[in-house]
Amino acid sequence: MTDDALLQQLDAHYQAMPPVASMHLTIAGYDGARLRLRAPLAVHVNDKGCAFGGSLVSLMTLAGWGLASLQLQVAGLDADVFVADSQVRYLAPLFADLEAVAGFAADADPAGFLDAVRNRGRGRIEVQASVPLPEGGVATVMQARYVAIARR
Amino acid sequence: MTDDALLQQLDAHYQAMPPVASMHLTIAGYDGARLRLRAPLAVHVNDKGCAFGGSLVSLMTLAGWGLASLQLQVAGLDADVFVADSQVRYLAPLFADLEAVAGFAADADPAGFLDAVRNRGRGRIEVQASVPLPEGGVATVMQARYVAIARR
Repeated sequence: MTDDALLQQLDAHYQAMPPVASMHLTIAGYDGARLRLRAPLAVHVNDKGCAFGGSLVSLMTLAGWGLASLQLQVAGLDADVFVADSQVRYLAPLFADLEAVAGFAADADPAGFLDAVRNRGRGRIEVQASVPLPEGGVATVMQARYVAIARR
Repeated sequence: MTDDALLQQLDAHYQAMPPVASMHLTIAGYDGARLRLRAPLAVHVNDKGCAFGGSLVSLMTLAGWGLASLQLQVAGLDADVFVADSQVRYLAPLFADLEAVAGFAADADPAGFLDAVRNRGRGRIEVQASVPLPEGGVATVMQARYVAIARR
């Protein structure tokens, strides 16, 4: 499958989930190691005129989920991906459209993750995601672990 | 203000945020120490037929935010409340309507929180929230810290 077809399939997967469709997200880029998602501030604005915390976590969580799903697909593995846990820090308010960037954590082992799903039917991978501020720095950062379970 | 009026005001506050209005949440109960929010599964369902992780975090985060906001209001304090950080564990899938319950953490000091906002214009409080499973146990648990900053 080409990268374009992969991303189209991922987008269809996102849009098929009602709470995700309501986020109006778009896939902004994928370079094989990092996935970027965007969503308009107008849909995610809170009472203080900045991005709602739940929206920031949702977008980062979806970016990490998409990243893990893409790696599995590229490797030809059919698996369900679940988020297992996450830690989020809210560092600064974001008064602009949301963009979440997800990549594997520095000490993550993507090859080992794929091998585990292939050989044992179950793998785990650590993801780091953040939402950058237009003026530099980040609004939020997340560390999360995802579990993939091979479909029978 | 009566409890009913307080909860009506909190509900209006929730519904005024577009990403929260789209969650179709309702306030299910408040006993002075714990706030419960509900939202229908149909609006929050993922690709696996269970509740979307981002929705679970959002509902728990909003429950904690509402709990802190109610305490401030009852104390006659006018402050903005922000979530500062959160840790979430996803323990089991939820195939039913969502209900998030938030209370202060065992070692939290609600009186000290209110004093800090009153005297220093800024306070911090730790909240625990969870989403119970209808069959017993919990789908997700969250620990989060909230910061309140007095409005001038």
